Amino acid sequence: MSGSARGIENLIELMAKLPGLGPRSARRAVLYLIRKRALLLVPLADAISEVATTARECVNCGNICTSEICDICANNKRANGTICIVESVADLWAMERANVFKGRYHVLGGTLSALDAMGPDELGIPRLLARVQNEDTTEVILALNATVDGQTTAHYIADELRGRCAVTSLAQGVPIGGELDYLDDGTITAALKARKTL
Amino acid sequence: MSGSARGIENLIELMAKLPGLGPRSARRAVLYLIRKRALLLVPLADAISEVATTARECVNCGNICTSEICDICANNKRANGTICIVESVADLWAMERANVFKGRYHVLGGTLSALDAMGPDELGIPRLLARVQNEDTTEVILALNATVDGQTTAHYIADELRGRCAVTSLAQGVPIGGELDYLDDGTITAALKARKTL
Repeated sequence: MSGSARGIENLIELMAKLPGLGPRSARRAVLYLIRKRALLLVPLADAISEVATTARECVNCGNICTSEICDICANNKRANGTICIVESVADLWAMERANVFKGRYHVLGGTLSALDAMGPDELGIPRLLARVQNEDTTEVILALNATVDGQTTAHYIADELRGRCAVTSLAQGVPIGGELDYLDDGTITAALKARKTL
Repeated sequence: MSGSARGIENLIELMAKLPGLGPRSARRAVLYLIRKRALLLVPLADAISEVATTARECVNCGNICTSEICDICANNKRANGTICIVESVADLWAMERANVFKGRYHVLGGTLSALDAMGPDELGIPRLLARVQNEDTTEVILALNATVDGQTTAHYIADELRGRCAVTSLAQGVPIGGELDYLDDGTITAALKARKTL
């Protein structure tokens, strides 16, 4: 691509590597940024530099934060004794948006996977077990994705924790606002098996 | 949204303002950036800061560049005497990607539009006419979008330039690889009217 200066081309190439953006949308985004210099380009430059220097993993739970211990782990108002296990930071943020869980989290950073050579040690399962012990945990909630790898990992962790504390997992069933006609057979089967008395 | 530190939330909010990104894809992009710190986050921070300080409009043609005169206007190998008029910098870059035009450009930055109060003065038409005079232009190529506003603007500029130099416009017709069945009636009509002897 020519017609633009080297620095601008470089920025377009980097933006095109973001998920959800390709070369065409990266060009559009960069032109938009340059048009909105004061309102967007300069603030974005500052924000991204700040995150580049400050963002780090919470040493306790694996959440992304700007201090050694994340806001959730540092918050005394959150219940001790309950740990919600999620696969990724994105899942942790999704749980927080629902604004219903008031305990602590543990981010696995992936799932057990023979293909990707992800075993219990790579996932930090021993560290999780130590944490469950140290924090006098009474309940571990498994909020892993309802995929094959996610459920395999959930069963492995549940086996490891058996006898140490209560282990629960998110309910499976019909999503709120979901229409039966558009649901897959697996979800309908799970929802029927887990039916409740009204 | 909670669960993330203030600086990270701020970056997500800014990213969500980019065209093609919403809150969800901005979160995904920021998490991806933080995971790829050395490979993507730090280079992007540098690139965006550089563009924020250096990007500016070419005083001659309106292209975006990092110097007073853009690479195209400064390039002695490009033909003088031919000016291609485009609506936006994105259009200029699209022309350059086709790599077939070897003259100079003029970026209008919009089209005539009564609704948006864009008249000839707001579009800088007098400056364009002066440029055509000063550069001994022999041909002006109108490469405006094939929209109502684009074509209105093209006709206005053609009228203003009448007698001063040759005025041409991009051919309209069937796009390369286009299938007649998927083309609109207007394009087929234009292609038929402009049919050529083989």
